[in-house]
Amino acid sequence: MSTIIDVARLAGVSITTVSNVLNGRADRMKKDTLSRVERAMAELGFQPNRAARQLKTGQAELFGLLVPSLANPSYSMLAREIEAAARAAHGYRVIVASTYRDPEQERAFLDDLWSHGARGAIVVSSLPDERHFEEPIARGMVVVSYDSHARRDAMPILDYISVDNAAAAGLATEHLIGLGHRTIAFVTPSGWTFSRAEKRQGFFDAAAKHGVATVVVEGATASTYSDAEMAELGQALAGEIVAHPAKPTAAVTINDMMAIGLIAGLREVGLTAPEDMSVVGFDALSLGTYFAPALTTIRTPLAEMAQTMVNRIITRLEAPGTPLGEFRFAPELLVRRSTAAAPRHHGSDRARQPQRA
Amino acid sequence: MSTIIDVARLAGVSITTVSNVLNGRADRMKKDTLSRVERAMAELGFQPNRAARQLKTGQAELFGLLVPSLANPSYSMLAREIEAAARAAHGYRVIVASTYRDPEQERAFLDDLWSHGARGAIVVSSLPDERHFEEPIARGMVVVSYDSHARRDAMPILDYISVDNAAAAGLATEHLIGLGHRTIAFVTPSGWTFSRAEKRQGFFDAAAKHGVATVVVEGATASTYSDAEMAELGQALAGEIVAHPAKPTAAVTINDMMAIGLIAGLREVGLTAPEDMSVVGFDALSLGTYFAPALTTIRTPLAEMAQTMVNRIITRLEAPGTPLGEFRFAPELLVRRSTAAAPRHHGSDRARQPQRA
Repeated sequence: MSTIIDVARLAGVSITTVSNVLNGRADRMKKDTLSRVERAMAELGFQPNRAARQLKTGQAELFGLLVPSLANPSYSMLAREIEAAARAAHGYRVIVASTYRDPEQERAFLDDLWSHGARGAIVVSSLPDERHFEEPIARGMVVVSYDSHARRDAMPILDYISVDNAAAAGLATEHLIGLGHRTIAFVTPSGWTFSRAEKRQGFFDAAAKHGVATVVVEGATASTYSDAEMAELGQALAGEIVAHPAKPTAAVTINDMMAIGLIAGLREVGLTAPEDMSVVGFDALSLGTYFAPALTTIRTPLAEMAQTMVNRIITRLEAPGTPLGEFRFAPELLVRRSTAAAPRHHGSDRARQPQRA
Repeated sequence: MSTIIDVARLAGVSITTVSNVLNGRADRMKKDTLSRVERAMAELGFQPNRAARQLKTGQAELFGLLVPSLANPSYSMLAREIEAAARAAHGYRVIVASTYRDPEQERAFLDDLWSHGARGAIVVSSLPDERHFEEPIARGMVVVSYDSHARRDAMPILDYISVDNAAAAGLATEHLIGLGHRTIAFVTPSGWTFSRAEKRQGFFDAAAKHGVATVVVEGATASTYSDAEMAELGQALAGEIVAHPAKPTAAVTINDMMAIGLIAGLREVGLTAPEDMSVVGFDALSLGTYFAPALTTIRTPLAEMAQTMVNRIITRLEAPGTPLGEFRFAPELLVRRSTAAAPRHHGSDRARQPQRA
């Protein structure tokens, strides 16, 4: 790796002169001096620093990160990993926005990024429709999508980084089947996203493979996508799950906050997890360890996924011809305390216990 | 509010011409045309849009937000509020960085902000030493500090926005005293920050006022300041609190994650909150509602504080002479289920219960 000193030596100029070129103070410099410095840089494959690169390319070393809401710990954990990877590996900083899965807000954010000189964005959105990204991408924006995948019916215009959600839901479901559960509920918000659809598919596939009965329990959340609303929904759906005529004895939920809400909702009607109902979360939030019972959940390789997304942004910014890619990561099941053998007595036999908490 | 159309009409030029001026494409424009547009803008008090303002002032509509770690839900909730307020009221975007209370990383972030054209920053840091902010501030950076306050021995160089932490700890302590607790522990990480020092003072003042015995239990956390480490510390300190010769029956903790960890730690040694020990958190994280027992905690007016910080940044960027200020907000006690009347049997009399969860 050549340095500013090497450039100065080869060009036969002072370090200050090289520094002036790098910092855009070349306006009063002799043309000959400037071109000698530039030739020396080229010859040495000198990597200009941030300021110089920005001057050369018009690109600030910034990219954007769009999440449904930073108030959701799944996304704030991811944001921390992305921001750390961006800074550590590439010296980039991150402009972040909570856009609540609203295509208009997502589009407005990409436009603002552009006007701030940022030419890359990681979008954590998982909306079915990506048309609002088309125009910014056509203009030159490099976009990497998290937790979504390429549509079969269209040319990909993004990189896709995701965990194999179907495999994840399969792991959760087969874990419950292995514990003897024969009727299992899938608990989800009602909005459609790629990741929810995949989880649902993985759940159904595993259940069908083992001849187990399924129930889908879903409900609408408010629009702000905070952890509070997801937990509230889980809590609100607890009664419906317990009262369901199919008498599920276990539940696969689409994330930890929902699982935590569901367990709190069970407690409200005098039931406990895992004695009365086994519950699996998704995300492996650290708080799940401290919850009682500690949550059985799915861990995704967040740091590796963040690193991959950041690398894709930087690589494609630096080498615009780079082909697009789809990167899938394997999930892992963490068995803790919220899942146990299926109770022998089901449904109407379930005595209402005094509330324990 | 005048528009680009009003400007065009008054200047007697086309809308495209005004747009060209606003977007910095005035280089081939006749001097007379340009000055007519500029006069019309001045006369109408026309607010130039972002692009134009940036060209005029060199300031991007960006500011920075520095937090110890986005992985700590207290900070990610605050980040969401700040980002929403910045966008809603002023059309600003936020560059965010987790800087782990490391002065070098904090300083590097302020320098990077500057190089990206951002001239404002909210620092959520609460470190005792603010000297690393001095140089960026001297250069023209507008800095607003969260959860810290002006030092008595130096001229303020920042705005200070905080909750009255001493009052908050006082509320928590007096609540426990009102429940009959006569020996109360204060549970905290060992690093010194303004807010922790204030909480500690408020705790001691309330205890002294009511003649109640105090115990301080503290321990070191790892350096990454995530929610996981705070909860881990609470959990690790549970044994020490239980074994303390002064036999505290209640604990005031410095945040909800620590309270949650502490309660999990009590559970590990066969004790429950609030039966064996009352625990108060701080922050009112929504997840505290779903925890068993639901956490008694302190709520701070997060949205109002975020709005105030954003307003200070924008006001001072737009009116550089604005005097600095200190803004304190009142906390509120939320009584939920983790606090109850002091147990009649203490310390060694405390039977080891079978674990309930």
